[in-house]
Amino acid sequence: MHSSAGLPLAARAADLVGSVIDSSTSLLASQTHDIVRFAMGAPAPEAIPTEVLAEIGAETIGAGAHAAFDYAATEGDPGLRAALVEELAGTSDETTLERLTITSGGMQGLDLACKLFVDPGDLVVVESPTYTNGSATALSYQADLLEVPVDDDGLRVDLLEELVRRAGRTPKVVYAIPTFQNPSGASMSLERRRRLLELARSWGSVVIDDDPYGMLRFEGEPLPTLHELAAGDPLVFSVRTFSKIVAPGLRVGWVDTAPELQPLLINAKQAMDTCTNHPLQRLLARFLEDGHLGAHLDTQRAEYGRRKRAMQQALEAHFAGRARWTDPQGGFFLWVTFDPPVDTEALFPIALAEGVAIIPGNAFSPSKRFPDALRICFATSSPERIAEGVARLARAVERLGALRSRTDRNAR
Amino acid sequence: MHSSAGLPLAARAADLVGSVIDSSTSLLASQTHDIVRFAMGAPAPEAIPTEVLAEIGAETIGAGAHAAFDYAATEGDPGLRAALVEELAGTSDETTLERLTITSGGMQGLDLACKLFVDPGDLVVVESPTYTNGSATALSYQADLLEVPVDDDGLRVDLLEELVRRAGRTPKVVYAIPTFQNPSGASMSLERRRRLLELARSWGSVVIDDDPYGMLRFEGEPLPTLHELAAGDPLVFSVRTFSKIVAPGLRVGWVDTAPELQPLLINAKQAMDTCTNHPLQRLLARFLEDGHLGAHLDTQRAEYGRRKRAMQQALEAHFAGRARWTDPQGGFFLWVTFDPPVDTEALFPIALAEGVAIIPGNAFSPSKRFPDALRICFATSSPERIAEGVARLARAVERLGALRSRTDRNAR
Repeated sequence: MHSSAGLPLAARAADLVGSVIDSSTSLLASQTHDIVRFAMGAPAPEAIPTEVLAEIGAETIGAGAHAAFDYAATEGDPGLRAALVEELAGTSDETTLERLTITSGGMQGLDLACKLFVDPGDLVVVESPTYTNGSATALSYQADLLEVPVDDDGLRVDLLEELVRRAGRTPKVVYAIPTFQNPSGASMSLERRRRLLELARSWGSVVIDDDPYGMLRFEGEPLPTLHELAAGDPLVFSVRTFSKIVAPGLRVGWVDTAPELQPLLINAKQAMDTCTNHPLQRLLARFLEDGHLGAHLDTQRAEYGRRKRAMQQALEAHFAGRARWTDPQGGFFLWVTFDPPVDTEALFPIALAEGVAIIPGNAFSPSKRFPDALRICFATSSPERIAEGVARLARAVERLGALRSRTDRNAR
Repeated sequence: MHSSAGLPLAARAADLVGSVIDSSTSLLASQTHDIVRFAMGAPAPEAIPTEVLAEIGAETIGAGAHAAFDYAATEGDPGLRAALVEELAGTSDETTLERLTITSGGMQGLDLACKLFVDPGDLVVVESPTYTNGSATALSYQADLLEVPVDDDGLRVDLLEELVRRAGRTPKVVYAIPTFQNPSGASMSLERRRRLLELARSWGSVVIDDDPYGMLRFEGEPLPTLHELAAGDPLVFSVRTFSKIVAPGLRVGWVDTAPELQPLLINAKQAMDTCTNHPLQRLLARFLEDGHLGAHLDTQRAEYGRRKRAMQQALEAHFAGRARWTDPQGGFFLWVTFDPPVDTEALFPIALAEGVAIIPGNAFSPSKRFPDALRICFATSSPERIAEGVARLARAVERLGALRSRTDRNAR
């Protein structure tokens, strides 16, 4: 395959798909009018503890802190790794030093998992809908994707078994976001979690347990993570990140894996970026050591619960009887499905012009199974802005409807 | 291939080779005795402008700077990209916004190049010796490596032609570090640079122009970079980094490529780490905007020149007639070859015990062609420490010699 520049591109270049989500960052930055931001899965700006980070930063990466600007160990800053082990002790994600490798965000955790496990042509199960960049990473390793539907109790594990049988081969990897799933907001039931692990064991498949939102539960009872249920079974490869619980711009996350994998992870990561940035690892180490995370999460949880309810109320006011939406117990996202159908890819530019940014449902499915759905992030905006944003969305849906009926009339 | 954990590893897992260099970071951190650090290619701690960075940091990533902690655009912070274009204007690396993509260090530039161009089994030319992580990245994409010798004028382009003919196929990629090469310190002559580009054009090969040290010339006349000589030819993929000129812990670099490649680079990078850390991009943007880089480089160049000469004097004092070494006009490294031979892999632990860290020559060759050589970084230590380090190295060589002759006697 050759690009327009006549360069000898690798075969996988054809499988490097763009992400509507990430492209939104540049697109939104270039807009000059007021926009309510339901698009990116980013914490509220005011939820980022910049005062604390600035205070800590002045000490940890201030004048004379030469070591913080030197290379870090590839497996991560020892202080951050130790602080994380301590922070997670007693939680459902309890871990040990030899299981823990620092990554450049959760995204690099997914890249590492694919680097270690995915050969071209391997079958990789993804949820449908799923996190765009997760499926994009598997595709960049030339995986064959098998999309398995999600309902209110998360991944349809019953269908997984059936679809794998029909595929005629077992998956190399199952990629799951079990808790407050991106984009649906659904959480996999305990029964399904157990059954998923049983199936994976029977197939010899690796389970990527991607859980960026699990610490952000604002309703309901905690569920054990796949990491906890696996109880050390090496097939579970857990991917975690500070992006949603502290700040995405830090690009610091971690993976929790069988200790036997760490030397391979280190080799793979050296060939990716040598190490994760050192100053912000130090910053996070101090943030944890000084005990800021617990209080910070408490504040975030309460606020995100309020925002979810504000979003649901606004949707009820504008879309009752015309759409249905999910009811997440944590995380960032609601999934809205229009009935009668609304073409959300056509809606996207109109909504942007009206001053509200959403992500069309098809962005979350490699085979574009969700033309009538959209993802809304309720975490970024205040309740007042949420009300305003949903009102703008309703106007955009009306404008699209009017446009369509005009086009239909003209086509007669 | 299966790991000890019984996991279904990808075929490439067998090609994920470790780096003695990066492993040194952890190894050295765990040592409790005094060690002179000739191992890592890292700037002098006192050469990292922490005072300026702390001052800027207080403003750019301080309290209220929420945007700096949000996701950055995948192609990089617009402020940093603009500042870089301005900084490089008029230099041999002059560039434009649409050619510039920010990366997580130079290493990610190499990862991106391989992701875009290297299919399993492709022929990739590397210099011999070469930068360990560069060849490791190509191997992680299952390339077949062709090692082509380096002499005092850099890559032996005459031999390249001959070796490619013998290989019976043309390379997909030629990976070169043309200026103050890692590890040899050699710079490719202008004539060889031109000839390399001619050959690459005739083969349709991509040239990875990796140049982390080019701004650190302390002697001799500047040479045009491959980027400049290519004059926009899309086959040259230039990889640059702030690691050596400001600080490696930042993990910020850039690639300069044909503009047509940028959409692919963005897609590939989204599946690697979403974006490069945002706060330290902002920090670097201000560092450039405020005009700190020029003065900083002037200071560094003068100091590194002094250190190189101190290193050569110390080597002369201890190893005259027993080794030869290169005479770089810039950068960080000297390459020492022992004659009569000294087994530098055996020397490594003895030198460490004596209190000096070096990297054995074989680390820089996938086929281990340099058992009698070692790389010395003269940039990290003061002239006094350099004298002490070389004295310790001389004692280590003596101890190894004594050990060997004892073993030889016992073997009789």
